[in-house]
Amino acid sequence: MTESPAASPDPDEESLALQDLGYRAAVIDLLGAIAYGEISAFDRLAEDARLAPTLEDKVAISSMAATEFGHVALLRDRLVELGADPFAAMEPFRHAIDRFHEHTAPSDWYEGLIKAYVGDGMAADFYREIAAYLDPRTRDLIVASLADAGHSEFVIDRVRGAIEADPRLGGRLALWGRRLMGEALTQAQRVAAERDALSALLAGGIDRPGLDLAAIGRMFSRITELHAARMSELGLDA
Amino acid sequence: MTESPAASPDPDEESLALQDLGYRAAVIDLLGAIAYGEISAFDRLAEDARLAPTLEDKVAISSMAATEFGHVALLRDRLVELGADPFAAMEPFRHAIDRFHEHTAPSDWYEGLIKAYVGDGMAADFYREIAAYLDPRTRDLIVASLADAGHSEFVIDRVRGAIEADPRLGGRLALWGRRLMGEALTQAQRVAAERDALSALLAGGIDRPGLDLAAIGRMFSRITELHAARMSELGLDA
Repeated sequence: MTESPAASPDPDEESLALQDLGYRAAVIDLLGAIAYGEISAFDRLAEDARLAPTLEDKVAISSMAATEFGHVALLRDRLVELGADPFAAMEPFRHAIDRFHEHTAPSDWYEGLIKAYVGDGMAADFYREIAAYLDPRTRDLIVASLADAGHSEFVIDRVRGAIEADPRLGGRLALWGRRLMGEALTQAQRVAAERDALSALLAGGIDRPGLDLAAIGRMFSRITELHAARMSELGLDA
Repeated sequence: MTESPAASPDPDEESLALQDLGYRAAVIDLLGAIAYGEISAFDRLAEDARLAPTLEDKVAISSMAATEFGHVALLRDRLVELGADPFAAMEPFRHAIDRFHEHTAPSDWYEGLIKAYVGDGMAADFYREIAAYLDPRTRDLIVASLADAGHSEFVIDRVRGAIEADPRLGGRLALWGRRLMGEALTQAQRVAAERDALSALLAGGIDRPGLDLAAIGRMFSRITELHAARMSELGLDA
């Protein structure tokens, strides 16, 4: 993170933090949301792989899918360790995440590539922002589960090549990127409105700093800037 | 393997064996076929995961898919090491493997589970039989790339439970298992007829023992017996 929020609890505070039932519920929510997000990303990437023009492209995107799925086990183990049923923890997020994917079903290979790269990147930025407010062990787990498998170069190479060959594609794909961002924000807002524990986490507590409105604004600015940087790497206007 | 063929070259013979262009072509064919088989199994398992009745079931079958895919990298690296283009090596097998999947698209979750377990098992038995005729390094690579991720128990548990709840299901699923076997043999025969290098490998050479008709018969008996054993573990007649 280039500009990371200040709150950063001491390692010894981990078990103490988790004794706070509200905090614990928020962590379970967050891990459940990320886990379902990865399962669902796996599913969609495997589906999008069928749009690949060559076997090599198909293998590259399938490999992104398999990497996403590889993170699920870590999250699941930690949920069990926290005494939660991992599948029950994922349940509250199924609707919003499924809805996001329904509304952003790629109509061709390039939309699929951009969604894989930009969509995944946005989600990762958002979870990393929240992770900064958590105990170090949870934070490290989240950061590890969001690590991308270095497929950015592949996507950038393919998208830039396609726009060079057909410049009109750039306009359509730029719109697509904005739509991905819009849909992600819509669904994130819905989740925030419904999940009290997560909202309380962001708001902070007596012993834990939270985010005031200005801080939330800065968080969204950072996420938007990172999104714009990714779009520009792809050769697209954000 | 309970009854493994006798041919088993010395480790030092590996590079010597690969200097034989016919042998080398056969190894490239075999690795290409297995790699495409795994990519394609990944694709189909990810698709079948959508039929899962619960999120837990979906995760279990998606995890089988991700494990299959994890083997592709090893095979691909070895193909590159042998100087082959991995994607060109897979190409000759796409049609037969795609055809197998088209003809065995599961119509429900249980057919999908049985296909994952029985279909994957059959393919692994077949490749392991052929691997016995190869240099040790290639053989070890093939055996490693066929290792299942211990999901058998999951499939056996689910299928047995479903048949207990609805005994009529057993008859339909037993037919399904026979159809999987029949389709696999049909496509395997087609590949054997088209790929001279693979057939020559099985036939042997001056310095390398091959399979006579009786040995081929015994190989198919072993594969059929292992198939029957798997069906019986599922509570189904083979």
